[in-house]
Amino acid sequence: MTPYSCMNRNELEQAYQTALNDFDRVKALGLKLDMSRGKPSKAQLDMVSGILTQVQTADDCIDEGIDTRNYGELAGLPCARRYWAEILDCRPEEIFVGAAASLNLMYDVISRAFTHGLLHSERPWCREEKVKFLCPCPGYDRHFLITQSFGAELVNVPMTPDGPDMDVVEELVKDPAVKGIWTVPKYSNPDGIIYSDETIRRFANLKPAAPDFILMWDNAYCIHEFRGEYVPFPDIIRLCAEAGNPDMVVEFASTSKVTFAGGGICCMAASEDNIKYFSRLFGVQQICHDKVNQLRHVRFLKNKAHTLEIMKGHAAILEPKFRTVADYLNREIAPLGFAQWNDPKGGYFVSLNTMPGTAKRALALCKEAGVTMTSAGAAFPYGMDPQDRNIRIAPSLPPVEELEKAMEIFCTCLKLAALEKLRAGA
Amino acid sequence: MTPYSCMNRNELEQAYQTALNDFDRVKALGLKLDMSRGKPSKAQLDMVSGILTQVQTADDCIDEGIDTRNYGELAGLPCARRYWAEILDCRPEEIFVGAAASLNLMYDVISRAFTHGLLHSERPWCREEKVKFLCPCPGYDRHFLITQSFGAELVNVPMTPDGPDMDVVEELVKDPAVKGIWTVPKYSNPDGIIYSDETIRRFANLKPAAPDFILMWDNAYCIHEFRGEYVPFPDIIRLCAEAGNPDMVVEFASTSKVTFAGGGICCMAASEDNIKYFSRLFGVQQICHDKVNQLRHVRFLKNKAHTLEIMKGHAAILEPKFRTVADYLNREIAPLGFAQWNDPKGGYFVSLNTMPGTAKRALALCKEAGVTMTSAGAAFPYGMDPQDRNIRIAPSLPPVEELEKAMEIFCTCLKLAALEKLRAGA
Repeated sequence: MTPYSCMNRNELEQAYQTALNDFDRVKALGLKLDMSRGKPSKAQLDMVSGILTQVQTADDCIDEGIDTRNYGELAGLPCARRYWAEILDCRPEEIFVGAAASLNLMYDVISRAFTHGLLHSERPWCREEKVKFLCPCPGYDRHFLITQSFGAELVNVPMTPDGPDMDVVEELVKDPAVKGIWTVPKYSNPDGIIYSDETIRRFANLKPAAPDFILMWDNAYCIHEFRGEYVPFPDIIRLCAEAGNPDMVVEFASTSKVTFAGGGICCMAASEDNIKYFSRLFGVQQICHDKVNQLRHVRFLKNKAHTLEIMKGHAAILEPKFRTVADYLNREIAPLGFAQWNDPKGGYFVSLNTMPGTAKRALALCKEAGVTMTSAGAAFPYGMDPQDRNIRIAPSLPPVEELEKAMEIFCTCLKLAALEKLRAGA
Repeated sequence: MTPYSCMNRNELEQAYQTALNDFDRVKALGLKLDMSRGKPSKAQLDMVSGILTQVQTADDCIDEGIDTRNYGELAGLPCARRYWAEILDCRPEEIFVGAAASLNLMYDVISRAFTHGLLHSERPWCREEKVKFLCPCPGYDRHFLITQSFGAELVNVPMTPDGPDMDVVEELVKDPAVKGIWTVPKYSNPDGIIYSDETIRRFANLKPAAPDFILMWDNAYCIHEFRGEYVPFPDIIRLCAEAGNPDMVVEFASTSKVTFAGGGICCMAASEDNIKYFSRLFGVQQICHDKVNQLRHVRFLKNKAHTLEIMKGHAAILEPKFRTVADYLNREIAPLGFAQWNDPKGGYFVSLNTMPGTAKRALALCKEAGVTMTSAGAAFPYGMDPQDRNIRIAPSLPPVEELEKAMEIFCTCLKLAALEKLRAGA
């Protein structure tokens, strides 16, 4: 195959007609396929459904003298705090265990910053003239939306293969209106980048002008390798403390992609002072979270070693799907030279940059042909991809045979959108 | 026994010495008893632990085609929305199902009012010069604390045997700074009052000056009779709609005292427009709540009729405890004529008014003798009982034999505190 950039007008026209015919053909199949969200598949959920029978009787509900069925233990069951501390390599006193969604804890942290202020705030953020929040992008749309919904000004930070561009971050945090940054340090959403040790060191050593700058450290994929061995990560709580920034960071993790996406448990990790501060605030809204489900999780997941074993089961289901995505892209798109993408070893996404100015069109074509993808631009603040080129592929939900069809359609639409543009420009 | 008010100085002195001796005697027992919170007892939790085995296998998790283990259904599983709609006599579209704590939904409603505004707000409440919130008292300390924590000015509203004094409420809502009111319409916390039809009608027909006035209708004890038959209650959502106030009310309920206090489900009921509005706001913080637990609940509780059967089981455990409280008070305190209390048929509390100026002292004595009670004043905004006389008795947690000891100590302390005051005034 000839790269599009080397084709003459006739060749382009021929390629366009072929792509158009392909598109009409796949559209006629009338499929309905979903690659829009990082949802685990039925096979993954079935694999961990043993969790349902971990707590069966009244006696099962008692743990270390605590009746999990009753009120109490706002910060979580002691065994659940120890479990998360082992996963994140911090101390149990640094853990607050939440309900099904770490997103909710993140929201609560930002919400309380606006209404009550954080530990070192001079005033609640709603009393500040302006609040800016740094958004490394492409990034996670739901992160950005939280700060957007509170009226913060979202500031784009470019990503590098080592994580967010720290030269840019270090410069931006000199502005006292910059109150925090969203990060996904391992298998970043959607790029699948693992922040380098140097990036992490520079994060821990940030010297922000705002005394209440918050490093939102969403370790969503901390143990989520789908290929190769588990990659250890450093304890950001300790690194920040050592750098003289003990209260600057709040870390998040959950079992949404370990057990059940719609019925797991989550946690927040931070300095003991932060945990005390947030517990005081959270204690106004909550007597306790569901401790029975916390106990179910600890009994099923046991410890880090056993959890990593379970993650290998997920990997065995996920790896062929990511391989399918890579195979299609390598075969159908790579020779044409108009798009680049990553090849992650963990996380839930493949991030693809197609020909600038064609991402929206490609996904509109996909939709027309029955394949739903995450909206173009979703990975950018305000949903605005300045180059209209980034597309997030989420291959976890459909079985491989469906995924193959979806990828065929997706590649066809990528080509057609690119050729439409080249043709218009020719 | 002679009432204290009829005793001469010698008789008072003698009664005081007796009370002092009694106090020393019970204190020497070195007991440690807890009547501070409306916690269900172990016997109640054991009775409903069959809920633990309702969802056991992967297949069990699928309900009406929805895999409860995966993301989705922000407003709750359809069957859970139908369940709550039947309990509250409203429509499933008017229900949003939450996690373990209705308190969290209440907090989120108030929090979002301050940061984003309610459906009919002209601006977020944090942009208002002043926000006042009405607090019928004695009432629920956790309600008051939510609005207090956002800086609202709490305004006391007296309670009558028919509910909050509606003459006062109707007058106060003419002030546009008054943004809402906390209510517990059935078996009010702590008085155990069921709001009369007339009170409820006047609530539905309120004409507040604030366009975004919110009636926080916490139906926490809607099916919580412990004596006698189930008492039906009207659908406040419909009543408000009929009165031309469709979006003024948000109702709350939970299974915290039906299944597990630390692992139940809760709901919010409101107009469809409100449910849509809040779902949009809540969708930023949450993909979904724990649907597996919702399914577990619906399969266990089935419907309203079956739930009311289960509530009779709770009643059989609770009634003897409330009888014990009444027996002690009738025998030990009634003849002395210095205190009044209610005799509820449902809910979780007995509310007692002792001799003005002695509630704090009586509870300090209780603590000294090993009995923990809800702090004096807790049922009032800012924890300030203007007459220092109200005490909330929460007899649900201890077994009857412990409760008897606790009540003996409590009555002794009530007497001693009253006699100390009479003696000092003599």
